[in-house]
Amino acid sequence: MISEADVPPSRGNWGRWGDADERGAANLLTPQRVLDACATPRRGQALSLAMPIKGSTSGPGATTVPHLHGRPLPQHFMSIDGGDYAAGARKIKGEMSVADDALIVSPHGTTTHMDALSHMWRGDKLYNGHSSDRVRSYGATRCGIDKVGPIVARGVLLDVAAHHEVPFLDGAVRIDAQLLESTADAQGVEVRAGDVVLVRTGFSTVFGDDPARYQDAQPGLDFSGGSWLVDQDVVAIGSDNVAVGALDVGGTFHGSVDEDIHMLTLWSHGVYLIEMLWLEELAASGVHEFLFVAAPLPIEGGTASPLNPIAVL
Amino acid sequence: MISEADVPPSRGNWGRWGDADERGAANLLTPQRVLDACATPRRGQALSLAMPIKGSTSGPGATTVPHLHGRPLPQHFMSIDGGDYAAGARKIKGEMSVADDALIVSPHGTTTHMDALSHMWRGDKLYNGHSSDRVRSYGATRCGIDKVGPIVARGVLLDVAAHHEVPFLDGAVRIDAQLLESTADAQGVEVRAGDVVLVRTGFSTVFGDDPARYQDAQPGLDFSGGSWLVDQDVVAIGSDNVAVGALDVGGTFHGSVDEDIHMLTLWSHGVYLIEMLWLEELAASGVHEFLFVAAPLPIEGGTASPLNPIAVL
Amino acid sequence: MISEADVPPSRGNWGRWGDADERGAANLLTPQRVLDACATPRRGQALSLAMPIKGSTSGPGATTVPHLHGRPLPQHFMSIDGGDYAAGARKIKGEMSVADDALIVSPHGTTTHMDALSHMWRGDKLYNGHSSDRVRSYGATRCGIDKVGPIVARGVLLDVAAHHEVPFLDGAVRIDAQLLESTADAQGVEVRAGDVVLVRTGFSTVFGDDPARYQDAQPGLDFSGGSWLVDQDVVAIGSDNVAVGALDVGGTFHGSVDEDIHMLTLWSHGVYLIEMLWLEELAASGVHEFLFVAAPLPIEGGTASPLNPIAVL
Amino acid sequence: MISEADVPPSRGNWGRWGDADERGAANLLTPQRVLDACATPRRGQALSLAMPIKGSTSGPGATTVPHLHGRPLPQHFMSIDGGDYAAGARKIKGEMSVADDALIVSPHGTTTHMDALSHMWRGDKLYNGHSSDRVRSYGATRCGIDKVGPIVARGVLLDVAAHHEVPFLDGAVRIDAQLLESTADAQGVEVRAGDVVLVRTGFSTVFGDDPARYQDAQPGLDFSGGSWLVDQDVVAIGSDNVAVGALDVGGTFHGSVDEDIHMLTLWSHGVYLIEMLWLEELAASGVHEFLFVAAPLPIEGGTASPLNPIAVL
Repeated sequence: MISEADVPPSRGNWGRWGDADERGAANLLTPQRVLDACATPRRGQALSLAMPIKGSTSGPGATTVPHLHGRPLPQHFMSIDGGDYAAGARKIKGEMSVADDALIVSPHGTTTHMDALSHMWRGDKLYNGHSSDRVRSYGATRCGIDKVGPIVARGVLLDVAAHHEVPFLDGAVRIDAQLLESTADAQGVEVRAGDVVLVRTGFSTVFGDDPARYQDAQPGLDFSGGSWLVDQDVVAIGSDNVAVGALDVGGTFHGSVDEDIHMLTLWSHGVYLIEMLWLEELAASGVHEFLFVAAPLPIEGGTASPLNPIAVL
Repeated sequence: MISEADVPPSRGNWGRWGDADERGAANLLTPQRVLDACATPRRGQALSLAMPIKGSTSGPGATTVPHLHGRPLPQHFMSIDGGDYAAGARKIKGEMSVADDALIVSPHGTTTHMDALSHMWRGDKLYNGHSSDRVRSYGATRCGIDKVGPIVARGVLLDVAAHHEVPFLDGAVRIDAQLLESTADAQGVEVRAGDVVLVRTGFSTVFGDDPARYQDAQPGLDFSGGSWLVDQDVVAIGSDNVAVGALDVGGTFHGSVDEDIHMLTLWSHGVYLIEMLWLEELAASGVHEFLFVAAPLPIEGGTASPLNPIAVL
Repeated sequence: MISEADVPPSRGNWGRWGDADERGAANLLTPQRVLDACATPRRGQALSLAMPIKGSTSGPGATTVPHLHGRPLPQHFMSIDGGDYAAGARKIKGEMSVADDALIVSPHGTTTHMDALSHMWRGDKLYNGHSSDRVRSYGATRCGIDKVGPIVARGVLLDVAAHHEVPFLDGAVRIDAQLLESTADAQGVEVRAGDVVLVRTGFSTVFGDDPARYQDAQPGLDFSGGSWLVDQDVVAIGSDNVAVGALDVGGTFHGSVDEDIHMLTLWSHGVYLIEMLWLEELAASGVHEFLFVAAPLPIEGGTASPLNPIAVL
Repeated sequence: MISEADVPPSRGNWGRWGDADERGAANLLTPQRVLDACATPRRGQALSLAMPIKGSTSGPGATTVPHLHGRPLPQHFMSIDGGDYAAGARKIKGEMSVADDALIVSPHGTTTHMDALSHMWRGDKLYNGHSSDRVRSYGATRCGIDKVGPIVARGVLLDVAAHHEVPFLDGAVRIDAQLLESTADAQGVEVRAGDVVLVRTGFSTVFGDDPARYQDAQPGLDFSGGSWLVDQDVVAIGSDNVAVGALDVGGTFHGSVDEDIHMLTLWSHGVYLIEMLWLEELAASGVHEFLFVAAPLPIEGGTASPLNPIAVL
């Protein structure tokens, strides 16, 4: 467990952001690794790995994006828009019009997001021994998403679905260490300390045709798979399923508490999870090593941030 | 005005995202420029340029972050937290706890954000001739923030406050072309096509001591300053004030409609604006050229996205 | 169509609230009728006719209340609560604790509510000829729910399900004038000018066991039933289904535009609709005439208000 | 303290709503008192006692309604409106248009509302000994606003401002028992068990001209005034200030914990508070005894409900 680091807080005047003992594996992002990551791109192509946030409440759009059953979907409202001017609203300075909007979002289970280390814990201690009493209605004053800072790292794609030569893995597939290693070997990539590893299941493409299947069992990491990645000292693990770890029938987390992927990563090792990725264009590119950038919104005390992760090929 | 481009849409299956005629200056991000940008960092240090999103409604936190008067401030709620477990809530699998949250945010005027090209327009046409009738209550189906895609570019800091040897510029300062050029010369940087240019006024530091001063006149670009940047074919202009352009007494946009900075940039040239940046650590670093990454949330039809822009030094 | 009335606006200093030409059938609430309504109760028992607003987002509660498919369900958040004190939050004046909360609600289709006259219209005119251009992103400046004022009226229950001796009517039942009249006769009540008439289908009880059935065809008024009530000069019609009028298979409004219940009531005659009532206790009471009170929240420009309608028996 | 009552729960099938030991002084609403209340009106005029909910975020409306400094103001959004049709949106059945909306509201300190008994407490016990651990992020499972049910009572106006012959009382005025009694005497009214007493200060009219004055010290009840009302066995106390009790300079609650009005009423005696009333039309009517109806929204676990209280004269 990381307890100290000499990475300076990047903006101390806004409070405790960047405190090393709350940043977990983000402390692995040494200057050399950041420079190495920036040297990875060969094509100069930047890809978004996010699903769209469809928040209109006057149509079915929001329900067409992969999500867990019963979660509050994003809501997007315009407080002034072009329709208002069409209906006669007065303009600014006579000719200028403005549109303005608001977003309501509960990231977990509804959209591409990154978990904070305060998202899950065991007993009464968060990651690194911080008290869970610090996670209150006004946010997590320990291990919030505002403590993470920018993730600029070498990204590695382990495309398990492609390795199995299927468009998506079945909900019963549990991705173990051996499968990760064989995928890496077959795809000619090596996982290194400080990497962000993206595990593609293809399961995000299931929702469109069969929402009920998506909202039940999902393919994902099992404990051995998660352990293998943690042992490589990765910074974060991302996947195109809901929980990085597998879901059993009924949509529950696979594994006992001792072998739970969230416990293993977020709680024991401070390794971040990036969930509900969209990896189809990245997979189609055939590129497996790239510059990965994640810039979670510095929501004070947030347990997650909606995210638009970027792969630069 | 850019009307065509051969950058392929990065995720056509989610709809029209990436359509070149709605992306404006983001089309300038050619592969070579992306690669050049990635080659810029020397230190391997990644800095966030965002202000925190303080959304607690049970304390004054939200009111302590720079914002415009009367705007709805961010609200952050926990739907389950550590306090609930302290009060006896039942855990998952017996020992695991989870915290979950929701965010309500109206980005313009309240937090660090990037404007979409659909944010402002003149007459009944958006950027590039798209009809303003496309901007409706369910979002902008033309030129929404979901059309931008990732911004990976060479970043340049023009630190006007430092050039004037003041902690912040007075609200009456109008940054014209000459001042930008003399700042660039003095700081040894050159603005190139495809750059993102960050103009530091230092004015974001005024709010803490004097909110009323912050919410009145602000230093910022005038038309000649904006024109000079647009003429260099920049992708985006960012600043640590509210509107990139200057605000006159009373907080209104400086300049006539013909010389309005939002009209010049967003509407006429498709140049993006990134507002309410926090540039103090970047300024302190003394680095003026860097890799700049902005990954706006792909909010379908959004007029903006809250943003955590990254400078990699 | 009512176009004038001499009921004085009750709070002119807050603006136009109470303007007679936007109040529709609420103008029928003459002083004598209000006094007669108050003289109706015999038992001194006040019953709520609302369904609960279950807004917790950390459990399935919100999904257990009858609602239309795909609508954004209520969200209820605590900004400070007892759990926070259990976890060590500092109290007020040393010993006092406070809990505070927030509600997000889209009333139509999710909870008991009253429609404003601006909720639906035909062509480009609202009720009474007001322009539909007045209904904009910042609310309806004509015929908003803030114009209604208190509804204090004689209430009449027409319990069609009881008349048919079933717990609830099938989704295929269309309640016509004849069925309303025979129900009234059988139950010994008379509908008078100025009444609020509640039509019980029992269909709200279907949701618990069979949400999909609830979200498909629903029993309700057909055009002849609606016309008969409108012809009696009622102030409002309430029902325990979603739309007062019947829904056809697939959940669409029954009837052509010319025979649509929303058009007939809200738009043509300014008769209010109160939807998604909970009428089970009222039905069990056996009382068919009562004092009815509805006090919609004066949401400026709202198209509806969540409502707790009261029957005083 | 009321611990038992034989008022039957009005809707047990929705859960625990109406449990007598969580309803406090609402148990005083016996059938006879309800009938007596209904017999009070003489004029047949129904008045709203609520301030408008101005939630538009594209203009300053929301800031013009009396509120506490720093509270999140109501937000009202349209998800579809007349402007959209003016801009070309497709209609229903060819000719019908619909407008739909959403409301975000934090009632305390922002709008007319009624406090639940779970809003404030002392030590670790709510009203009537219920554990404060029951008040969690997903709402108060004891003493929530959903437990109150309808308030149908005799209403009494004690117009202290009129008694002092001023448009509004100064912020330094503390309304004690003697002042209440002399007001009642002068205005010829008697406070009885089961009444809802409305205390008019006129202070809500201060906000329009001087928001800062409104948000500082406020006139209101002191402990002797509150005690006198509680001793009369009133059901609820309402006022046109923010907290029923007085606020000292800086906006803090007047009095020690032992003499705090919220503790005395909500916590010790289960007497409800109705705050931020608009009493100007009622005062102008010259009527001091009336039928009072409050129908709080049954928000499960809510600490308050926005409210449109009604006086029937």
